[in-house]
Amino acid sequence: RYGYFGRGVSLMFCKVSGCLTDGRVSLSASGEDTVSIHYKDTTGIGMLKKDDVEVVLLISRDDLVTQSLADKLKKVTGCEVMLVEEDPLKDLQSVVRKKKMDWKDVAFMGNETADASCLKLAGLSAVPADACKDASDAAKYTCRLLGGAGAVKEFAEHVLLQKQKANCSRRSGGLRSEW
Amino acid sequence: RYGYFGRGVSLMFCKVSGCLTDGRVSLSASGEDTVSIHYKDTTGIGMLKKDDVEVVLLISRDDLVTQSLADKLKKVTGCEVMLVEEDPLKDLQSVVRKKKMDWKDVAFMGNETADASCLKLAGLSAVPADACKDASDAAKYTCRLLGGAGAVKEFAEHVLLQKQKANCSRRSGGLRSEW
Amino acid sequence: RYGYFGRGVSLMFCKVSGCLTDGRVSLSASGEDTVSIHYKDTTGIGMLKKDDVEVVLLISRDDLVTQSLADKLKKVTGCEVMLVEEDPLKDLQSVVRKKKMDWKDVAFMGNETADASCLKLAGLSAVPADACKDASDAAKYTCRLLGGAGAVKEFAEHVLLQKQKANCSRRSGGLRSEW
Amino acid sequence: RYGYFGRGVSLMFCKVSGCLTDGRVSLSASGEDTVSIHYKDTTGIGMLKKDDVEVVLLISRDDLVTQSLADKLKKVTGCEVMLVEEDPLKDLQSVVRKKKMDWKDVAFMGNETADASCLKLAGLSAVPADACKDASDAAKYTCRLLGGAGAVKEFAEHVLLQKQKANCSRRSGGLRSEW
Repeated sequence: RYGYFGRGVSLMFCKVSGCLTDGRVSLSASGEDTVSIHYKDTTGIGMLKKDDVEVVLLISRDDLVTQSLADKLKKVTGCEVMLVEEDPLKDLQSVVRKKKMDWKDVAFMGNETADASCLKLAGLSAVPADACKDASDAAKYTCRLLGGAGAVKEFAEHVLLQKQKANCSRRSGGLRSEW
Repeated sequence: RYGYFGRGVSLMFCKVSGCLTDGRVSLSASGEDTVSIHYKDTTGIGMLKKDDVEVVLLISRDDLVTQSLADKLKKVTGCEVMLVEEDPLKDLQSVVRKKKMDWKDVAFMGNETADASCLKLAGLSAVPADACKDASDAAKYTCRLLGGAGAVKEFAEHVLLQKQKANCSRRSGGLRSEW
Repeated sequence: RYGYFGRGVSLMFCKVSGCLTDGRVSLSASGEDTVSIHYKDTTGIGMLKKDDVEVVLLISRDDLVTQSLADKLKKVTGCEVMLVEEDPLKDLQSVVRKKKMDWKDVAFMGNETADASCLKLAGLSAVPADACKDASDAAKYTCRLLGGAGAVKEFAEHVLLQKQKANCSRRSGGLRSEW
Repeated sequence: RYGYFGRGVSLMFCKVSGCLTDGRVSLSASGEDTVSIHYKDTTGIGMLKKDDVEVVLLISRDDLVTQSLADKLKKVTGCEVMLVEEDPLKDLQSVVRKKKMDWKDVAFMGNETADASCLKLAGLSAVPADACKDASDAAKYTCRLLGGAGAVKEFAEHVLLQKQKANCSRRSGGLRSEW
């Protein structure tokens, strides 16, 4: 039993650029920018929600993701979209505290050097296969799939499996303690 | 003579997301979402129709494919587009029954775990090269090409070849029975 | 001296879907479809024109390329865009005759089985690296680059090189005949 | 200490097509063309600016990048966008002279044969992993990443590292000369 000792993740933060998308934004002269997302990833987000895991999408100021695209992502995924600083830790710290949660019950998906502190702190964390080395080294799980091509779903399945395992072992632990 | 014992496929179901497309949807702030399809695949659909095989495209609720995109796909491919539940079997079962057809005269193309039951039931079935393992294991044919990049045409050619073979062997069988 | 014995190509036919593009068309619910082309390929077309090679782009009825997209391609590349049947030979035959040209002074780029007869007939012919086997077998040159990613430019450079070689050998031949 | 002997780069030229983008432009019938850029590359441009390196984006007449797309790139990246001839050297020479700079304090990123002279002249220069051979041979640094997928950021990090090294060695040299 290793990799996750929490009580079951109930909150997941996920970077948009490079995790939910492949990092590209299509620029149009008229301003009608677009990003591509994969149906697998929105399916993964749906699975997490059914299991009472709240998913919060993170965009940063350098992300090229405009406010109107953020609104669209919110509408399509049904997730809260949060604007964070380059290092997301400070912004997320206050959210975790406000929710009176423990970081070990938080899942985090990122792909950049700046995400390393959150990747280390979170009970479960992952990077897409094409994340930078600093992020991969800090993450507890490395997806086989690329950002924007199913990595979020792969991590979602991992999170749900760990949650299930944690529930089982807690239950069996509970039985034992009754002896 | 193996792989197909039916009288000749006259109906093909094909998932849109991951089979006819690569699974991605381009999101635009104004709502003008787009999906990419390959001319090879629409050519393949055209070949099936010429050979009196009806093609029905399947989208599911998690697919990110909106109603207006479904209408567009219908217009471009000339195929019926059907909304199915996560496991498409129930929805398709009633279609097959209504048409008084046998599943062994039905072709099915899917790429997800939820498609496994249909992939097993259909007389001819296939997955794109990048389908998930559960689907590949259940399919009778695995395409060399990826979803959204010609896999539907590859399966169409396979279906037409099997149909031709079935016709030949039926005819030669018929001749023999006249002796 | 092999591969090209003509007097110098002055006309090139080039399929749009799969040669100038990667074969994909982005469908939008509102009808505003898009195709992607690579700046290398339009550069290659420009090089041909500077060398007095007329370039005619070919689209077929199954191509998903609408009339308005064809008009756009004409505007962007400055090339004539011609609608051809599945087998382009008949349509092109009448063009070549009308221009009183010889097929050995025509260059052709295609990628499908239906293009094989033109690929064999043309003095210079090529397929992108990702063309189907029948087309590759019929073509005199196979590009290293993929359709929609520079293959047209690669063939353009090949055509111009062969033209230069033909000019040189004709000139040296001419000098010799003066002896 | 090799590869860069300048006083610290304060100006970087970067080709748009093939360096900041993958070279593709999406054509739409209505004229609303789009190009895709990667958030990593705009992050890299932002890092250069913070370190007082001016970044000028270069588009050429064959680029398929329209004036309105150039305006959009200017708005999104905050960089000057400059129209250059096929060989950008002449245009850039006059800019470098006007700014009374030395080419060894200029960084240049290109990917085509025509960029070779600038790649050789600039104190620091790079090509994306998918540049043509002539450009790669002329460049002082070859990125691991592809054009349109982070190559600009990779070069930006390289430039900033060299600048830092140059500063350190100048400072330590300065200390020594005081002995």
